[in-house]
Amino acid sequence: MSPTNHQVRLAARPNGLPVQSDWSITEEPVPTPSAGELAVEIEYISVDPAMRGWMNAGASYIEAVEIGDVMRAGAVGRVSASENPGFAVGDHVYGGFGVQEHALSDGRGLVKVDPGLAPLPTYLGALGMPGLTAYFGLLDVGKLAEGDTVVVSGAAGAVGSVAGQIARIKGARVVGIAGGAEKCRWIVEELGFDVAIDYKGEDVRRALREHAPEGVDVYFDNVGGEILDAVLTRLARGARIVICGAVSQYNATGPVSGPSNYLALLVYRASMIGMVVFDYAARFGEATGALAGWLSEGRLISREHIVEGGVSAFPDALLKLFSGENTGKLVLSLGVE
Amino acid sequence: MSPTNHQVRLAARPNGLPVQSDWSITEEPVPTPSAGELAVEIEYISVDPAMRGWMNAGASYIEAVEIGDVMRAGAVGRVSASENPGFAVGDHVYGGFGVQEHALSDGRGLVKVDPGLAPLPTYLGALGMPGLTAYFGLLDVGKLAEGDTVVVSGAAGAVGSVAGQIARIKGARVVGIAGGAEKCRWIVEELGFDVAIDYKGEDVRRALREHAPEGVDVYFDNVGGEILDAVLTRLARGARIVICGAVSQYNATGPVSGPSNYLALLVYRASMIGMVVFDYAARFGEATGALAGWLSEGRLISREHIVEGGVSAFPDALLKLFSGENTGKLVLSLGVE
Repeated sequence: MSPTNHQVRLAARPNGLPVQSDWSITEEPVPTPSAGELAVEIEYISVDPAMRGWMNAGASYIEAVEIGDVMRAGAVGRVSASENPGFAVGDHVYGGFGVQEHALSDGRGLVKVDPGLAPLPTYLGALGMPGLTAYFGLLDVGKLAEGDTVVVSGAAGAVGSVAGQIARIKGARVVGIAGGAEKCRWIVEELGFDVAIDYKGEDVRRALREHAPEGVDVYFDNVGGEILDAVLTRLARGARIVICGAVSQYNATGPVSGPSNYLALLVYRASMIGMVVFDYAARFGEATGALAGWLSEGRLISREHIVEGGVSAFPDALLKLFSGENTGKLVLSLGVE
Repeated sequence: MSPTNHQVRLAARPNGLPVQSDWSITEEPVPTPSAGELAVEIEYISVDPAMRGWMNAGASYIEAVEIGDVMRAGAVGRVSASENPGFAVGDHVYGGFGVQEHALSDGRGLVKVDPGLAPLPTYLGALGMPGLTAYFGLLDVGKLAEGDTVVVSGAAGAVGSVAGQIARIKGARVVGIAGGAEKCRWIVEELGFDVAIDYKGEDVRRALREHAPEGVDVYFDNVGGEILDAVLTRLARGARIVICGAVSQYNATGPVSGPSNYLALLVYRASMIGMVVFDYAARFGEATGALAGWLSEGRLISREHIVEGGVSAFPDALLKLFSGENTGKLVLSLGVE
């Protein structure tokens, strides 16, 4: 164990894409648990588009990260010391540990995970918040029904890739929108999406007209912007648009681009519904059980895009989400053996 | 009865606000019913913001009016001749008779109305499509609950004025947004809204912060544009936004201005839902019964803004909706004694 805990702290609020000077890398001694606490040696850190929102001033669906704070992040690691009777040294746990090598916790909100059941990074992907977001977004918010035509944007991303697969498992026809031929190949050939639309190489409206001729029943939106506007023109009567995120807009320096075609909601008697996965915490067990079952049956594939380099690689890793470099869940490995 | 039927026909598709040359006034002989038909002498014609959308090319929630067609309009009148056993001369009826003085009908879709129960123009207002739109939009789409804070835009208009009154009857706190001191006075002093915000004279965001400190549970939107964006910043958790119309956008010559703050749907776990009143046709009886009851008890006030001048006054009357000149339901009188 390193005697030093390296941490990534927010140094300044970004204007647009975060730059290196928005971060500071600090170090402090590895913390020692007091009574009731435990220490965790972090092994994998989740890198998420939502992080960009947390860096802005002002509360949104969650409080902002304050200047000088360790950057908020979900992570998995191993209990390295414990004065909490609920956790033993060697247990593996998921928690909001932040972008650092070691964390202290009083145990609240931690979830024990079993590295024998799935690799640890999967607990940040299909068995973690992205999988849960896909599950509740599609089934509860989107009210997916068998035979529906479902469109998923960000389809090769952490949430979208799981959402599309759940839709297939539930008997829907699934059109994924992703950037680039390789991502499109992956979601169709390996994940089983019915069709992929490459937004970098195709006219999305025209492609939707071809691939969703009866209209879109559920649109699971991770990106916002022009793609949201395109899908609005192709809705089926009574369509549900699940607003999960808007990665195309998170680094906007001017006003967010609102959906110019929103009056399609009226034309198609459709609804656009915002969701935050934390609201479903009481049912995480149900969802994790279903997701783990599909994983073990081979019906659901979780792919993690692992970035090496430790916490100092975090600032660059985050940018990969906005340039679309990741396929599957982006995870930072801390290289713990 | 005039021997001539004057009609207003669509001559060209407008670009922006309709101009006189987008219309032609034509005349033909008063039609005579064949077997199964009836003729109606039209007395009052409904003038609606939605008409602007019907003038554009391409189907929306309803087919476009074709160039050369009599302009589509709801109207009330008196049966002047009948070869249909369901209707007698002297009956009063509501139907989609168009902007003309006389119409033929096979009787389908016509509703008999009783001028002894309410003045005929009221069947184009609180007892007509605007009242029904307010009723179903607020109660079914908006799922209004007692104690909710409700915001209504276009609050001095045909739909908004009824929506706000229904919300009060159902035990909600109602904030109306309207343009100008006189409209604001009217909705508070005469209709019983709790508060009015004058969007022409006040900062709507600041006023909402003051008058809806706990956030907005239901927003009944008739206007779109900047006011929709302002309300999005003040939602309560789980808010419902009813998209009934967007009068601020109907004459846009460029792209419609989409709601830049739509990601508030995610922050507040809110939904934005489009509606069209025709979908509730099977329940019009229920709603009309409730509306007529409230009218007779004096709990609901229907105000019609009557424009004189016959069908040739229609083009100018329509423009009043977009300049905000009307208070209550805009109705064109054909001056029939």
